[in-house]
Amino acid sequence: MDPIKDLREHFTGIVRLKYIAFLLEWDMQVYMPSGASQGRGEQSALLEGIIHQKLVSDKTAEIIKKAEGVSNPNLIDAAMLREAKRDYDRAVRVPLELVKEIAKTTTLGYKTWEKARAKSDFKMLKPVLEKLVSLKQQEADKIDIGPTRYDTMLDQFEPGAKSDWVLKIFNDLKPHLFRIIKKLDSSSNKPNQEILKKFYDPEKQWDFSVEVLKKLNYSFEFGRQDKSTHPFTTSLSSTDTRITTRIWENFLPACLFGTIHECGHALYEMGFDKEIHDTILADGTSLGIHESQSRLWENMVGRSREFWRYWYPILQKYFPENLKKFPEEEFYRSINSVQPSLIRVEADEVTYSLHIILRYEIEKELIEESIMVSELPQLWNQKMEELLGIIPPDDAKGVLQDVHWSGGGFGYFPTYALGNLYGAQIYSKALEKHPIFLEEFEKGEFSTLLSYLRENIHQYGKIYEPRDLLKNVTGEDLNSKYFIEYLERKFYPIYKI
Amino acid sequence: MDPIKDLREHFTGIVRLKYIAFLLEWDMQVYMPSGASQGRGEQSALLEGIIHQKLVSDKTAEIIKKAEGVSNPNLIDAAMLREAKRDYDRAVRVPLELVKEIAKTTTLGYKTWEKARAKSDFKMLKPVLEKLVSLKQQEADKIDIGPTRYDTMLDQFEPGAKSDWVLKIFNDLKPHLFRIIKKLDSSSNKPNQEILKKFYDPEKQWDFSVEVLKKLNYSFEFGRQDKSTHPFTTSLSSTDTRITTRIWENFLPACLFGTIHECGHALYEMGFDKEIHDTILADGTSLGIHESQSRLWENMVGRSREFWRYWYPILQKYFPENLKKFPEEEFYRSINSVQPSLIRVEADEVTYSLHIILRYEIEKELIEESIMVSELPQLWNQKMEELLGIIPPDDAKGVLQDVHWSGGGFGYFPTYALGNLYGAQIYSKALEKHPIFLEEFEKGEFSTLLSYLRENIHQYGKIYEPRDLLKNVTGEDLNSKYFIEYLERKFYPIYKI
Repeated sequence: MDPIKDLREHFTGIVRLKYIAFLLEWDMQVYMPSGASQGRGEQSALLEGIIHQKLVSDKTAEIIKKAEGVSNPNLIDAAMLREAKRDYDRAVRVPLELVKEIAKTTTLGYKTWEKARAKSDFKMLKPVLEKLVSLKQQEADKIDIGPTRYDTMLDQFEPGAKSDWVLKIFNDLKPHLFRIIKKLDSSSNKPNQEILKKFYDPEKQWDFSVEVLKKLNYSFEFGRQDKSTHPFTTSLSSTDTRITTRIWENFLPACLFGTIHECGHALYEMGFDKEIHDTILADGTSLGIHESQSRLWENMVGRSREFWRYWYPILQKYFPENLKKFPEEEFYRSINSVQPSLIRVEADEVTYSLHIILRYEIEKELIEESIMVSELPQLWNQKMEELLGIIPPDDAKGVLQDVHWSGGGFGYFPTYALGNLYGAQIYSKALEKHPIFLEEFEKGEFSTLLSYLRENIHQYGKIYEPRDLLKNVTGEDLNSKYFIEYLERKFYPIYKI
Repeated sequence: MDPIKDLREHFTGIVRLKYIAFLLEWDMQVYMPSGASQGRGEQSALLEGIIHQKLVSDKTAEIIKKAEGVSNPNLIDAAMLREAKRDYDRAVRVPLELVKEIAKTTTLGYKTWEKARAKSDFKMLKPVLEKLVSLKQQEADKIDIGPTRYDTMLDQFEPGAKSDWVLKIFNDLKPHLFRIIKKLDSSSNKPNQEILKKFYDPEKQWDFSVEVLKKLNYSFEFGRQDKSTHPFTTSLSSTDTRITTRIWENFLPACLFGTIHECGHALYEMGFDKEIHDTILADGTSLGIHESQSRLWENMVGRSREFWRYWYPILQKYFPENLKKFPEEEFYRSINSVQPSLIRVEADEVTYSLHIILRYEIEKELIEESIMVSELPQLWNQKMEELLGIIPPDDAKGVLQDVHWSGGGFGYFPTYALGNLYGAQIYSKALEKHPIFLEEFEKGEFSTLLSYLRENIHQYGKIYEPRDLLKNVTGEDLNSKYFIEYLERKFYPIYKI
């Protein structure tokens, strides 16, 4: 009789079923034939039901209760119990009927969003979005972590984070971003992206991305890369972490930085300590920390001068017709050009967080009922003008661009911006400890940085909560100054300021 | 309260879980990274356990009992009940411990077989094979459909078939095959396979196979083709039937006929009536009938003169360096050359059934305890000499060549030969009704034949049991004369006899 062992095994059963659900999803996005959607939907719903039942069962309650009786659990055991209780509590408080209603409405929301976006018609989405907001409000009221509904939602993605804390961080960050953007805009020698918009053979883009993955220590023994419409990372077990990328033949960064971004996520999941493999702790400790890893590799490493010192000559050999005579320095500048734009996923490092702040401000008010769904398009456009100085020509390029809300994902967006901030703070610390990284990048070596991240972050999975983890690594709470300093130090020289 | 509806839905739940298990398997064979085996194995075992529990639950018993109370069920309802009872009875009689022990030993058997075959060392496999035989005997004793253990095993793959019936069919068939082989061997103008053993670019082989699939009405909306070590067909729902092929760059038939063979299986599964989609009836009515469809398309269509009248000029354009000057008639002869050989999966249409008869004779005696596992290699070689006139140089090319026994698949082999016989009988009937097929093949048209098979076989899935189905289609019980006539009519001209 070992209550912690029972807990571990019981939740590993649930985790394994989730991995199976992720395979259903991976296959759907990557290889499933088009006519198979409905049958696959039924399978996913069935499996989700089984997972939910297992999680909220009396057996789970009993196992947790017994584990709570264990005195002085070690670090891992205590974390397992914490996460088990967290998952159980969130799930058991929501009536099965509401779970099913949300699942159904989410599916409908996704389908409706696809159509509404294609027609750029927000009115099509309005009814289902209203229903979804109401259902997610009911769900939050049941779970009630508090203090507000929005806090409950946020906590699902960023455990321990409170909305007031996020608000303060974003309000601190905003004027700095405005200031930096204004300064960059005043430059008389701006980089531009023209070179990136030539034709780049898709097969060669793919081959280059694989070469980069290998050097970044992504393991093809425990993972693979495929293509999908939207790049993503998924773990189908602790020894099977797959990524996808997309290839645009007239825009080089899509595949290249898509691959590096997902590689960053994957390296996190590939780095969990064997002790927690396939357990409830085998996951990123929060979406924000997860995003810190993807953004760190994509931007701080992948868009650095040092990185391209090694890779640019190789890239030139892949695409001599475009790049043979194009200088390395100008290429480096082109992949770092800053320009307020309409679409979040295409935004540069500087303006990106403003897209997130916009979404955060809107969804918070929506959930707290200060605004109504019908007001979203107008509010979106108004805030776009305030924050980025541009107004979307239509809803497809405005309020309809992201899938998150149509899938009920409220409280998710802030984690993207937190990821940038976490990433800069962690990277700053890593550089301080091992300044040699940068020299290594120039030689195509990335293992010292990876070792640092593995040792300080990856291995722990969910053992430490995000705030504790960050404090352990950097010695302080989240501080946006690292991100601001990083932007200034990087972009002023690029803009010859 | 509709007991049949309840039955239908309950078993559809089980079927959907099986589809998920098939996806785990498909992914493992096609795309899973090498390091992920163990985690995947755990997931499969977990899911199999859930499926088993659901099948043998009190709820299943209750649902079946209520459905049995329904008077005058229609054809489909009666078939659902019959198949539900069949699955339930087979599963509920086997103790869970034995199920788990067999699953574990099967996995070990497969791994051991791989190593033993690589080293051509039967002794390595012997202990686990002995255990497996004993476990499968225990299982058969529990299920006990009878009259003998072997009948119980056979019934799993070929419902309603009895070992005595199979024995009679095989004993009838044997002398005819000997006679035909002898006659072909006496020819002074034999075809040979040299032209097929040149280098054929793998990518072009793939493209050609896809072109063939499209013309054969394989639906890429409801399926896809990938590559794997061993070609197979699997349905991941009633609207998702996938096939795989393999490409050998120095042997053209591997990909070409592998694809057509699997396409034949897939067309069966793609043709089930919508009414039975995703139900317990959405499956081939037996492995023998399933194999009849694959062999019919592979051999009777795919290796016919008419088929190549249309396809050979196209194939020549794919591989002009090899085929431009090579005559169509000689190509047709080369893909139909007959030669006793060591490996079953590479055997021609004439000698193939002898490989099966050998396996059937051996496994029957093994299960009935007339021979021991240790005697297998010697008995194998002895029977090879008797039936095919050649002796394997080692066990890898002899008793170790097939995976079936190492996976506990006793009673499976006969269905391969039955498939040839069913196929010839069905094809003969189809040709009698619609002699125009052959002219259509010459124009690259295959839909009349497919419509015939859909209407008479495919749509029914498991609604009719194999014997009834065959009688409905052809008006008589299985009769090997159709196969023998087919061989004689086809091969004597090829051999200029």
